[in-house]
Amino acid sequence: MWPNHRLLDLLQIDLPIIQAPMAGANGSAMVIAVSEAGGLGSLPCAMLDEDKMRAETGVIRQQTDRPFNMNFFCHTAVAPTDEQQAAWTARLAPFYAEYGIDPSAVASAPVRRAFDDGMCALVEEVRPKVVSFHFGLPSGALLARVKKTGARVLSSATTVVDARWLEENGCDAIIAQGYEAGGHRGMFLTRDVTAQAGTMALLPQVADAVKLPVIAAGGIADGRGIAAAFALGAAGVQIGTAYLFTPQSLITDLHRAALRAATDDKTVITNVFSGKPARGLINRVIRDVGPMSEDAPPFPTAGAALAPLKAKAEISGTGDFTSLWSGQAAALGRDIDAGDLTRNLASEASQRLRLLAGL
Amino acid sequence: MWPNHRLLDLLQIDLPIIQAPMAGANGSAMVIAVSEAGGLGSLPCAMLDEDKMRAETGVIRQQTDRPFNMNFFCHTAVAPTDEQQAAWTARLAPFYAEYGIDPSAVASAPVRRAFDDGMCALVEEVRPKVVSFHFGLPSGALLARVKKTGARVLSSATTVVDARWLEENGCDAIIAQGYEAGGHRGMFLTRDVTAQAGTMALLPQVADAVKLPVIAAGGIADGRGIAAAFALGAAGVQIGTAYLFTPQSLITDLHRAALRAATDDKTVITNVFSGKPARGLINRVIRDVGPMSEDAPPFPTAGAALAPLKAKAEISGTGDFTSLWSGQAAALGRDIDAGDLTRNLASEASQRLRLLAGL
Repeated sequence: MWPNHRLLDLLQIDLPIIQAPMAGANGSAMVIAVSEAGGLGSLPCAMLDEDKMRAETGVIRQQTDRPFNMNFFCHTAVAPTDEQQAAWTARLAPFYAEYGIDPSAVASAPVRRAFDDGMCALVEEVRPKVVSFHFGLPSGALLARVKKTGARVLSSATTVVDARWLEENGCDAIIAQGYEAGGHRGMFLTRDVTAQAGTMALLPQVADAVKLPVIAAGGIADGRGIAAAFALGAAGVQIGTAYLFTPQSLITDLHRAALRAATDDKTVITNVFSGKPARGLINRVIRDVGPMSEDAPPFPTAGAALAPLKAKAEISGTGDFTSLWSGQAAALGRDIDAGDLTRNLASEASQRLRLLAGL
Repeated sequence: MWPNHRLLDLLQIDLPIIQAPMAGANGSAMVIAVSEAGGLGSLPCAMLDEDKMRAETGVIRQQTDRPFNMNFFCHTAVAPTDEQQAAWTARLAPFYAEYGIDPSAVASAPVRRAFDDGMCALVEEVRPKVVSFHFGLPSGALLARVKKTGARVLSSATTVVDARWLEENGCDAIIAQGYEAGGHRGMFLTRDVTAQAGTMALLPQVADAVKLPVIAAGGIADGRGIAAAFALGAAGVQIGTAYLFTPQSLITDLHRAALRAATDDKTVITNVFSGKPARGLINRVIRDVGPMSEDAPPFPTAGAALAPLKAKAEISGTGDFTSLWSGQAAALGRDIDAGDLTRNLASEASQRLRLLAGL
């Protein structure tokens, strides 16, 4: 039925749809719904501690025996220098003044954790069928432990060079993350956001460059996009933004309302929320400070300085300082259950593929 | 045979492939090869005077009776202020010094002409089957004269808002120009380059927003991209960069060599060559002055100040100051005849479409 079965075979899933892990925006409920529907649900772990990961994966295992994915960040955490932190606080000073926030009380603690021994031990304990990484791969020693559990390992490439590196360094399939994608870009061998390629251009070039199955990500939100991804050489897709509209999504009502109002030209790639480039809906802090600010301290600390502004602004009903993550195809989103969305996407894609051949 | 025949019917062509008009990079020879192969050849007229247009279209008519397209820019030419010109000259001063160029002798004359009465009279004389515009549409009076000749009118949308405007203002089909596309972006109702959408996201949103046939552009360079465009709702494609590799392309050997060496991550959108955003291969002037410079005077004058630098650098064998236009899929390009390329693209796309349905 599908033009390419390599990903289905590799991950032991029925539908070639991976629900993108979205740290802070999805937990076990979405994973269960997607995996039960036949796709691959993904639990984002970058903002969870071990107890929470254990609890969430426990719930998943109670509700489904289908494969699921645990996702981790594997950045090298860089502490900001005092100068960087001071420059960032100074940049945000007018906002602190406006909201009556004491800048000296603002934390700089990172909220996103890089894959480490404790997380690896948890993977060895839980033994998920799939583990995906963002920002490259962890150290060889940690990766070897993950692979020894039998887990299939995925990671994202935003360039052909990334893709080749991931293939040479132990990935089992590669997510080609196009410029359209929402949330953090998986960039790890490059820093130049302006040279990042759109999915239409990136995907066939990655497919030509590697032997591994390629998963398309970025700008895909309905059956048309899935059919297009197969046309370009993908063996499956990873979809994020469309799942933010489902009842299983943990986003605020404010984020949900912003997504419902989104159009094609309302997102940009910004570093103001974390220090690394990520795509979200344009709001006040992006307009005033970004989208790419040289003052933003290195990932993942930039966001901590925005936290008190975000909290106060949200109380007054605005997302002026909130990371409203979104890809460029939010306008195609629908308010339906994550399981139904998965099934609908697959059936639309399947119909579309038949239509294309004049059937 | 094709999943959507609307563009074929509208333009009276056999293959759903439009060769993108590339000012300075193609003339009648490419138009003839593409139109004879069954696609739509396009003659870029923005850098031609009436005599040259008459000569080129005369040659086309001698060699083929197939439909072809005449393409015009319809920007509002804005003369730079003295301050703008001075700021730009100052920005380029180190390069002038390096090459021993007298900045006071640098011209600021525009080399690209907006569609006007004289060009319109030429269209009335030549009566091409198709006329396409870039940067919106000309005045209602000029557009009415063009349409009265029976020509089908096309223009590019880089946003859904653009697309709706073009539909309401008299276009017969809309080119959805994704972020991946090489050369000038057709932006006319927006200035925010950072919010421009990739083809994968833009195309289905434009297809949902308008009733007219939609032509996909940006990142398409082989049969996979054409099949993907149909999957996303297009009725055809416009392809530029792939045609730069053909013997009918008028680009320099230097540009050709740069394209052959291109990879997915080697282009950016820059305004340094004309004042308007356009995608090209990253070179020294883009790196040092751009990619988007606030000092670049308004379109189309920015490039004149680079002309003497370009000339001297090219003599010494470098494209440091040359606009090396390219989309993000240059790596998929092949050195073959433009007619053969057109036929191959169509046959690859057709095979791909059948493959997708498991045939």
